[in-house]
Formats: sequence, C-alpha cells, structure tokens
Amino acid sequence: MIVETQSVQFNSITLDSGAVIAPVDVAFETYGVLNAGKSNAVLIVHAFTGDAHAAGVGKEDGKPGWWDNMIGPGKAFDTNRYFVLCINVLGGCRGTTGPSSINPETGAPYAMSFPMITIGDMVRLQKMVVDHLGISRLLAVAGGSMGGMQVLEWAVRYPDCVAAAFPIATTARHSAQQIAFNEVGRQAIMADPDWNNGNYYGFKPPARGLSVARMVGHITYMSDDSMKEKFGRRFRNKGAAAFTFDDEFEVESYLRYRGNQFVDRFDANSYLYITKAMDVFDLAQGYPSLAQALEQAHSRFLVISFTSDWLYPSDQSLEIVSALRSRNRDVAYCELSSNYGHDAFLVEVGEQTDLIRGFLARVYKEAA
Amino acid sequence: MIVETQSVQFNSITLDSGAVIAPVDVAFETYGVLNAGKSNAVLIVHAFTGDAHAAGVGKEDGKPGWWDNMIGPGKAFDTNRYFVLCINVLGGCRGTTGPSSINPETGAPYAMSFPMITIGDMVRLQKMVVDHLGISRLLAVAGGSMGGMQVLEWAVRYPDCVAAAFPIATTARHSAQQIAFNEVGRQAIMADPDWNNGNYYGFKPPARGLSVARMVGHITYMSDDSMKEKFGRRFRNKGAAAFTFDDEFEVESYLRYRGNQFVDRFDANSYLYITKAMDVFDLAQGYPSLAQALEQAHSRFLVISFTSDWLYPSDQSLEIVSALRSRNRDVAYCELSSNYGHDAFLVEVGEQTDLIRGFLARVYKEAA
Repeated sequence: MIVETQSVQFNSITLDSGAVIAPVDVAFETYGVLNAGKSNAVLIVHAFTGDAHAAGVGKEDGKPGWWDNMIGPGKAFDTNRYFVLCINVLGGCRGTTGPSSINPETGAPYAMSFPMITIGDMVRLQKMVVDHLGISRLLAVAGGSMGGMQVLEWAVRYPDCVAAAFPIATTARHSAQQIAFNEVGRQAIMADPDWNNGNYYGFKPPARGLSVARMVGHITYMSDDSMKEKFGRRFRNKGAAAFTFDDEFEVESYLRYRGNQFVDRFDANSYLYITKAMDVFDLAQGYPSLAQALEQAHSRFLVISFTSDWLYPSDQSLEIVSALRSRNRDVAYCELSSNYGHDAFLVEVGEQTDLIRGFLARVYKEAA
Repeated sequence: MIVETQSVQFNSITLDSGAVIAPVDVAFETYGVLNAGKSNAVLIVHAFTGDAHAAGVGKEDGKPGWWDNMIGPGKAFDTNRYFVLCINVLGGCRGTTGPSSINPETGAPYAMSFPMITIGDMVRLQKMVVDHLGISRLLAVAGGSMGGMQVLEWAVRYPDCVAAAFPIATTARHSAQQIAFNEVGRQAIMADPDWNNGNYYGFKPPARGLSVARMVGHITYMSDDSMKEKFGRRFRNKGAAAFTFDDEFEVESYLRYRGNQFVDRFDANSYLYITKAMDVFDLAQGYPSLAQALEQAHSRFLVISFTSDWLYPSDQSLEIVSALRSRNRDVAYCELSSNYGHDAFLVEVGEQTDLIRGFLARVYKEAA
C-alpha cells in the first residue's frame, strides 16, 4: 500500500490564546475508502514526534507508517471496513504549519514568534480537516501518548462527533515528573548556542541539544527491564571495555545513534512548542473536576495502559476511568502486560488488535 | 561543631588501569576521637557529588555536612563513641586530586589527560588514608548510592579491615537504565561548546551542559510521588500560567535553580570521570558470580533500600543480599518505607538511625 501525504490549506485558525495563524497548512494521510454515508471514518492522532504517515509505505521515502502494524487490511484499524485518517499536528514540522513554516507577514520562518499552541488547538485544526472532508461524526478517535491527550480533548470538546474514544498510554494531565523530563529536553535545546533563540533556520540547527533531549526521551520510553534485555551491560566492542568516554556500552551507542538520527527528522523549535503544549494540557481546566470535564463526553471509551509504562503509568489511565465511571459513562479499561515500557503502545500489536477490532466492530454496528 | 577539612599528600597511587597519579592529594574530615586501640573508626563514603564535609559546620563556609543529620553526638554515627572519617573521592573536585588538579608534569590542569578511574581506585586511596591514620580495622564502612558501591568494594577487597558494611540505596553494578541516565549527563556536558574537550579551566566552564546534566540527575533522585507533593502542577507565579518558555511551573523553576547552583560547586570533568567509574563498576568483575565476589567479604552487612527509590530499586539491594546469603554471610536487610525516592538515604533519618545505631553498637561490643 503506497501512500502519499495530502495537504489542505485553511485561511486561518484562531488559537486558545486568541492568536491567529493565517494561513494554516495541514498534512494528512488517508487509508481505505470513505463510505457513502461517511460513517466509517476513524481518526488516528499521533504522539509527540509522530506525523501524518501512520500506515502504508510512503511514496517518497518508502518507509512504513509509524502505526503500520495496527492500520491496514485485516489489521486492528481494518482499512477494508474503515476510512482511516491521520493528521500531522499543529506546531509540527512534517507538513502542518509550525515554527519552521514561513510567516507570510515577514517572509521568514516563524521561529519563536510562532504563537504558543495547546492540545486544544491541535484538535481544533483536526476538526477543520474532518469538516473539510464532510465527515460529521467520527466512528473513533484513537491514539497513544500525546495522541491520547488529543483523543480525550476530542471527546470532551466535540462530544457529538466522536462515537468511540481510545486513549492509550496517556494522561488527562502531566505530573510534575513528566513536566520535568520535558523541561530537561527544552533546556538541553535552549542551552545549545546553535539554537540562537530559535533563529537557526538556514544555519546549523541545535543538533547537540536536540540529540540530548531525544536521548532523555528514549530512556523514558523504555522500561528498566526492556533496557536490560536489549542492552544489559554489554559492550559495543566485544571483550573488555576500552574504558574511554566513547560509546563503549551498547546502551550508550544506541542512545547516541537515536539522538543523532532524530536531528535529521525533527525541528528543535517544534520540540519546544509541542512539549509545552503537553505540559500545559489539563483536561479538567475550566471544570471543577476531571469527572465534570469528562461528563461532557458521550463517546464509548476504551482506555488502554501497559504494565511497564513508567512514563504514563497505569494510575493515570485509572484516573480517567474512575472519572468516567463516576459520571456513568461507557468505559472499558485494559491494562495490558508488556515489558516494553511506554513504547508498548507502538509495538504490542496482538492484544491491542483484539481489543480495538472488537470494540470498533461493535460501535460500527450500533452506528449503522 | 565547627570542622575543618584536612589534607594529606601521598607520593603516588597506582590505578586499576596501571596508570600512576603522582603526587595525590586527599581531602578528609574527622569527627569524634580515635580511641587508644584505634578500634572505633567508622569510614563514611560519599555519593557522586558529595565531598569530605559529611558532618558539623564547615569552618570556611559555615554550611552543615551532607549527612549531618546522621553523624554527631547521639546521632546514628555517634561521635561520642566513634571516630568518624569521611574522604573526598579520587577524581573529585573538592580537595582530592581530580581532573581539575594541576598535573605537575605540565603545570596545567589534567583535564581529559586525567587517567580513567574506578570505584576500586577510590577505595584504594581511602585505604591509604586509613593506613596513614594508623587504623588497621574499620568498625564500619557506610555510604549510600555511589557510596554504597565503595562500601561493597571495601568489604570484598579488604575483608580483614571492615567489621561492618552498610551499603545503602545502592547496587553491585549499574543497569542499562542507570548507565543511560549517566550517559545523557555526559553527553549534555560534552555537547556544550564551552566544554572544549575538557580544556575550559581559566575560561568559561560548560555551565549549560553541566546544568542540564544535573537536572536529569535531580529527576532521578526524586520519586514521582515526592515530585507531586513538592510541586504538583503549581505555577511559580500564582494565577494563570503566563504560558511562555520561562519557568512557569514550579518544578521547572526548581530544576533550573538546582542546575545552576550545581555549576558553582562541581567540576564538569569530574562529572564525566566519576559517572564513568560508576557505570564501569561491577563488583562481580573478575569472579564467576556476584556470590563468589561477595564470598571474599567477612564483614557483617546491613543493607538498606527505600521503597520509592526507582534509580537504585530494592531488587538491586536484594541481589546483594541473596548473594551474601548464598555464601552464608551475616546480612541484615531492611527496605524502608519512604516517599523520597533515591534522596531518601539523605533525609529519612529516623529509621536509618535506629537500624545503624543498634547494628554499630553490637559490632563495637563484639570487637571490643
């Protein structure tokens, strides 16, 4: 399945802050066929560094989508039945307007003049794409990590537009520890002189700072156990350690590789804006409680967490589940056993597929 | 109790690597009085960024020692009964020879020409100080975190010199995750252009990189729960968030403050060398198993861990305990309940005091 990223431009979007971005470009991909009643659309929302290329093989780079194991014919999100849509988030750097985009007023990249954005803004822009496609109600909105935050926001902000919501490995708001890890990443970027207050476009990007930020991220995405299994204390060069500051341990080598690789595909200012949007996100904001926020939602919920995920631990999912149950909302919760830490939502295909396929089929049948 | 840091110089020390440092200066402090039989000496070994100033009030800076709540008259390490000694580690930057020291051969700081050091080297230098003081047998060696590694090394390398060993919140070897966190810190420092391959003495130190490294450290020293309690999602300036990249969350402000503060008291190259020594440390190295390494030890052991310490989790202490028990060694183990994460060994005074005071009294009585 070769897929091509599509694009749509809107005249403007007004943000939660009141700021306006005009125009705004949005990158998205679709898989499967929208039925005549436009009732089989599923929106996939991506995590922090994801993009619109969720499934299939990219036309340009030949690479599989980030959730290709879950989206496609016969898969969890079965493209023989459903029309699946994935949209690059506002503030990103993969086709949707973000800090690296040209500000038409100046002819130069926005850089740090890009307005602050929220998870709510990301969702509002997604709603514009969904409207643009003529879809009045999504069969489901699904996503993990920051994607899960968007799922929750969709369910609360557009209750009539979401039949089912699948928030996976996520939270209704970041804890101090989650904010702290993001802040370290931001500080690493801003400490790099090449960051230059965000004005590095056309020059050397803050590669070292961004790489360090990504290394911190990768530690939090894995579990202690999965790191043990994958790396242990093995040395990169067999035999005794050279005992230098080079990457003698395999885990050091891996982190440096992933850090350097990341620099080629992600924009440092997008890193700042998107992590900040995550940290500021609080689903309960504007409501007396999380339960009262979630009371706005009318979707069926399938909440999934993973045993070894210490970045978005299960108790954060349970907080969402409890709030929904206290308001008599329809919610199923599964804590799946996995060794992969936060990465589990991307790699634990088996049980997630069973859960999601069955849940989606039921919702589709009811909606028909 | 005003205390002054003392100093001793040895002609040379030969390292595990075969390299020689000559001469070598060592900073240490003592509290209490060494008895006539020299049988009441307790060696306190410090953690990563600690120093010789473990107790009392510093003569120069007026600051309390890092374990002042545990060392002093009537405290866990009761200076009315015991002669307590604390030594700044080799490779440090607080009086003992390290990368920031002048290499007499060049007249310039060692910087990255300083030889690689090990936990074993640190302990060998401590042994030289103990010998210098005429102490043939220590009543106890005690320390947390990297201090605990030194305790284990002492017990295995100098079994006849250690009556009791108290490894606290520690491990016999770093896991991949622990190496990974240290590696991120090192990369943050080395990514700072001011690091300049270690040649920053007399110039601007790599303050931004060192600060980021310290921020990562502080996250791992606290627990998710203690961060929730201390900071939650509170904003630094009451009322609505300014929503900028400034330190609007209290946790951001705290981390930045601690990061910046650290730069004034710690040398970046020492950070590199000491974290590497921790990562390379493996008590079982040279033995077929950890149990066979610990079989060399003849001390009584009191192993302590803390429930919320996720950096040095209890299962790492249990691994030590199991290995000791398999060789029929005398070991007591306590997992203390605490919310403070890895920091617990510095702040949970009550139960640690009871445990250590009783254990020490028994060993002292037996040794008398």
